[in-house]
This record gives sequence, structure tokens and C-alpha cells, in this order.
Amino acid sequence: MSSSINDSVIFTSSAFEELSKYLNAHYRDHKKVVLIDENVNEIWGEKFLVDVQPLYEAEVIVIPAGEETKDIEICKEIWDTLLSYQIPRNTVMINIGGGVTTDLGGFIASTYKRGIDFINVPTSLMAQVDASHGGKTGIDFAGLKNVIGTFELPKTVIVDPQFLQTLPEEEVLSGFAEMLKHGLIRDKHLWLSLIESKGKLEKIYPLVEKCARVKHEIVAQDIKESGLRKVLNLGHTIGHGIESSYLATSKAITHGTGVAWGILFESKLALNKGLVTAEIFQEIKTGLESIYPLPALNDLDIPLILNFLQNDKKNDNNAIKLVLLKDFGDLEMDVEASTEEIIDAIKTSY
Amino acid sequence: MSSSINDSVIFTSSAFEELSKYLNAHYRDHKKVVLIDENVNEIWGEKFLVDVQPLYEAEVIVIPAGEETKDIEICKEIWDTLLSYQIPRNTVMINIGGGVTTDLGGFIASTYKRGIDFINVPTSLMAQVDASHGGKTGIDFAGLKNVIGTFELPKTVIVDPQFLQTLPEEEVLSGFAEMLKHGLIRDKHLWLSLIESKGKLEKIYPLVEKCARVKHEIVAQDIKESGLRKVLNLGHTIGHGIESSYLATSKAITHGTGVAWGILFESKLALNKGLVTAEIFQEIKTGLESIYPLPALNDLDIPLILNFLQNDKKNDNNAIKLVLLKDFGDLEMDVEASTEEIIDAIKTSY
Repeated sequence: MSSSINDSVIFTSSAFEELSKYLNAHYRDHKKVVLIDENVNEIWGEKFLVDVQPLYEAEVIVIPAGEETKDIEICKEIWDTLLSYQIPRNTVMINIGGGVTTDLGGFIASTYKRGIDFINVPTSLMAQVDASHGGKTGIDFAGLKNVIGTFELPKTVIVDPQFLQTLPEEEVLSGFAEMLKHGLIRDKHLWLSLIESKGKLEKIYPLVEKCARVKHEIVAQDIKESGLRKVLNLGHTIGHGIESSYLATSKAITHGTGVAWGILFESKLALNKGLVTAEIFQEIKTGLESIYPLPALNDLDIPLILNFLQNDKKNDNNAIKLVLLKDFGDLEMDVEASTEEIIDAIKTSY
Repeated sequence: MSSSINDSVIFTSSAFEELSKYLNAHYRDHKKVVLIDENVNEIWGEKFLVDVQPLYEAEVIVIPAGEETKDIEICKEIWDTLLSYQIPRNTVMINIGGGVTTDLGGFIASTYKRGIDFINVPTSLMAQVDASHGGKTGIDFAGLKNVIGTFELPKTVIVDPQFLQTLPEEEVLSGFAEMLKHGLIRDKHLWLSLIESKGKLEKIYPLVEKCARVKHEIVAQDIKESGLRKVLNLGHTIGHGIESSYLATSKAITHGTGVAWGILFESKLALNKGLVTAEIFQEIKTGLESIYPLPALNDLDIPLILNFLQNDKKNDNNAIKLVLLKDFGDLEMDVEASTEEIIDAIKTSY
């Protein structure tokens, strides 16, 4: 992967060098704050502070790893810390970590003193291909994912595959589900390359940039999700419902697993609605199931899933609206579905 | 005052009719949420729900009156309430009340599900000429005013002087200080008209629209306060420090009183720095003191004021920067001042 720069994303194999260059070019006189999760800090923290000269005098805030960190109480602690360090408005915050860190860091940055600049350095696959791009910041609240947040773009995102080396396989697969979504949104060629890789790390490196660019191109045209951007919700309406339902019980699944199952169930819904052919549905089902085996139908708490669906922040009034597949690279937005149709789609996917 | 519409502010003497028209024109299919403070609700609440037909099915959230309401714990309660009512993203929130309500309501609206539309109906003079315009939303945090917030413009602001009739004189004078600031920013003519009115309600009605437009015109050119908008901070750097210092002790002063004193001390600073003539300073001092008598010098906790100044969110790095007057309608931005210079300006204003 070569080092190429477009408007607001840098793909590189030397993140430390690129971050130094970027900070020196744009933020020479700014205060720097690093927000980093404890796991990433253990592996990479020292290297950032030693190899990135503009961070020598940065304030460093280490946050717990895990989804529970996207919480208003943690926000309060971080706002407090920033104030106690007297962090001024001309500060740049560098969020280093997975989606939790970039979501939370973006929210903090966009609300502290009514907004300071921030840069994302995603270290998980999920964040590299999806979460760290596009300006959706936020925290979970009242048991609901990302219901409090803002739309605020990072000044740049620095994507470097070296950070993926130490990623647990489960997390690779979680991020890979978003790559599959990007494949479906783009074209059959990208989808096939992805399925062929089986989500194996060494095989997906060259595809990371391709998939991240799918997201970037869409978001650049519609930052506030008033139209086109909705295609990125493919698999996420039912997927979020499933993920939230698992989160509400003792078991938890990765975001990517929820998305993969969501893509499958939503594709069945598209088939039932006559939007997609049986052949394409079968191709998607075979591809997804080879990587993300479905749970037993009895393990899905369908009433709870529906309950979460109805409070989905993307819904207008009471209708459940989804983006559904018509073909590889071709989607239909704002398709309404009843709860019965959704239940049916889930049950007949088996 | 006639009913005139510009981009995003409506000056009217029939707010209920204008609000109905606006909601029907722009938000026919949206859910409506009304955020209103308890005092305003007691006087005007029923009339809004009866006379504004599009609000018949609105959800109404009543909040406590007073600055303490601009608090993260209150935000959490309101976010919770919105979620429990399953308020969707295509909702318009109508904030009815003083600056506390429009600041807090704007912050809630700009962060709930990453942003819903909102309209402000300011009922205090302070909110009508200043707080409800310009998109600065926010709450107080860790004892500091407005340190957590966003820049997000209301879709419109409906300004109607009928709401001022029931306003306590202290609150009229508080808002009037912002009008004086707008007078200084605009020209000597507006300043003189204001001083002549002595802040008497019946005399300031015709000046409300003029002063609100000063703010509107400036903000339209610089929403995120990167340049021009800073002129609106006239009197507010020292003024906020004074207000915060009083808030931190048992006594409290109105925001406007802090601003009036702030304008005076900052004008003295401008005189000491050779920016303004002794004649203009004297004119401002005489005008201000006739309406806002200064406290005894011993009553000002200068070390505490300076402490707040140093954590002012408008400061870059460690310098205290102010906007200072050169003449009526002519200001100098980003003037640096040392703490010694500020102490001296305060002490020699007496």
C-alpha cells in the first residue's frame, strides 16, 4: 500500500511519520491532546510519544477499552480532565484506537468549548474501514447505541495496516463485515475479492483502502445522512437491533457479527419484497454463512430485537425504514417494512 | 414593530400565528417537542398549546427556571425523556423561554440522535436580543459557563415583545446590557438611543429588532467564531470572569450586570492601551454607571476573576485575548493583555 493523500484520509505504512508531518504542517501552534485506549496504549503508546515529535508535550488521556467506555459518565471525566489541564480551544485532539475511541473522542472534541479539531488514527479494522471516517461521533445512552452524538468530521484519518498485526481474530472478523457491506455497495468484483479472502488478515490488507474509499466517497457527498449516505446503513437496521438485544442480555456479539447477520436478514427481506433475485440472495447467504455462522433461531430474542428497531434513530415517525439491496452496487433507500415482514425475513432465512 | 421575515429570524407581534405558519410551512410531517421553562409555562404554556394548532400533539417538557438547569444531569433527564417518548430524528424542537432554555434546548437538539431541528421562541430580553440567535448552544460544567456545547443554528427565531411584559425589571436590565454592547458595536447613534431609553421597557421595544439584527448580521458571516464574530465578545471576557466569580460565591449577579461592568473595565483597558480616547471612555462610563452602579472595589474577588479568565474558552494558549473598543462602531480584535494590565484596568475604573 503506497502512501497517498486525499482530502481527509491518509493511507500509509508509516503512520508515525505521517502524523508528525501532518501536525507540523497544520497544528504547529496548537496544544495537543492524545486520547488512547488502554490496550492500544500498552502496545503503541510509547512509540507515538517517542516517534511523533509534535506529541512530545501532548497531554495523554488513557481510557478503558470496550463499548462501556462510550458513556456519558466517562465523557464527564474527560471534559473535567481537559478543563483541569486548561486545554484551550486551539487544540487538536488525536484519537488513537478502535471505533470506541474515535466515536467517543469525536464527541468530546465536538462539544468541548463548542468544538476543537480532531484527528483519528484508527487501530482496529472496524475503525480503519468504517467507524473513524465520516464524522459520526457519539456515545451510547440508556442502553441504546450512539443515540447521543454529533456529525463532525475529523480533520484527517491516518490509516496504517501495521496496527492490525496485533488484532485478535474476532475483531478482524468484526471489521471485515463492514468491508463486505462496502463490497455489496460498490460492485460484485469487490464483493468476490472479499469473500475469496475469507477475512484472513494477510489477504485483506490490499482491500482495506478500497473499502475505506467506498465510505469516504459516499460521506463526502452527504455528511448529515439526508440522502445518499443511508446506503451505508445496509445490514445495520436489523443488525443494530440484534446487537442491542444481545447487549441487553448476558451474552454479547461483535458489531460485525450483528451486521453480517443483519445483511443476511435484510437480503431475505429484499428477496421477499421482490427487490433482489433468489440467485443473488443465495450467493450472499453462502458467502456470509461461510464466515459468520448463524445462531440457532431460538437464540434470537425477536421481540427484543423489534423493540430496539422501533427506537432506531434512523426511523421517521413510526415506520421502520431500511435500505435494501437490488443488486451488487445497486440499493433502494427508504423501503418501509412492517414488524411482521421483518419477523418473517428472519425466520425464513434459516 | 411590523412582521418581517429574514433568513432565520421573524420579528412579530403575533408569535402564536407566526409559529403556526412556520411549522405548517416547514414541519408538517415532523414530530414536535416543546421545551419550556416552568415560569414561562405558567404564563404562556397553555396559550402555545391552544393557539398554535401544529402543537396540539406536541410532547411538552417543562424544565426548572434558572442557570442551574444548564447542567449535564438535566441533559441526561431530557435525553432519557426523548428516548422514552421514542422521539424520532425527524422532529422539530421548539425552545420557549430565556437564554437558559434556548442554550440548553439547542444543545439537546444538536446532540440527540446526532441532531434534530430546533426553533427558538425567546421570551426574555436577553434571549431576544442575544442568546437565542447565532447558534451557540451549551451548558455549564465544572463551575464554568458554557464550556460544553456546540455551534448549531436554530432553523428560525421568533421574536415577539409581548413576552417581555411580564419580565421582572432585573431581567430587563440584564438583557439591556447586551443591547448596549450591540449599540457600541454598531454606531454612536444606536448607543445614544439606548442610553436615552435608560433601559425602560416601553422605550426599548423599537430598539430590540435593531439590536438583534446587529448580532444576526455578524453571526451570518462567521458562525464558528473564527474571526469577525469575536466582536460580540466585547465586555464578555472580564464580564464572564466577574459573573463566574460571583456564581462561585454565595451572591450572584445577572449576566447583564457582569457584561456592563465588563464593558466598563475593558473600555478602561482600551484607554490604558491607547486604543480609545479619554472622552469616549468617559462617555461610556457615565452611560453605564447611570444604569449599572459599580460594586465596591472590595466586593470584587480579583484573584478569582483572573482564575476564571485564564480558563476562558476563547483564549488561545496562555495569553488572555480580548476585543477592545477603538471608537463607537470600531473594534480591535485579539488584543493581548497581561493579568497585571487587567487588574490595573479594574482598579483605575473607580
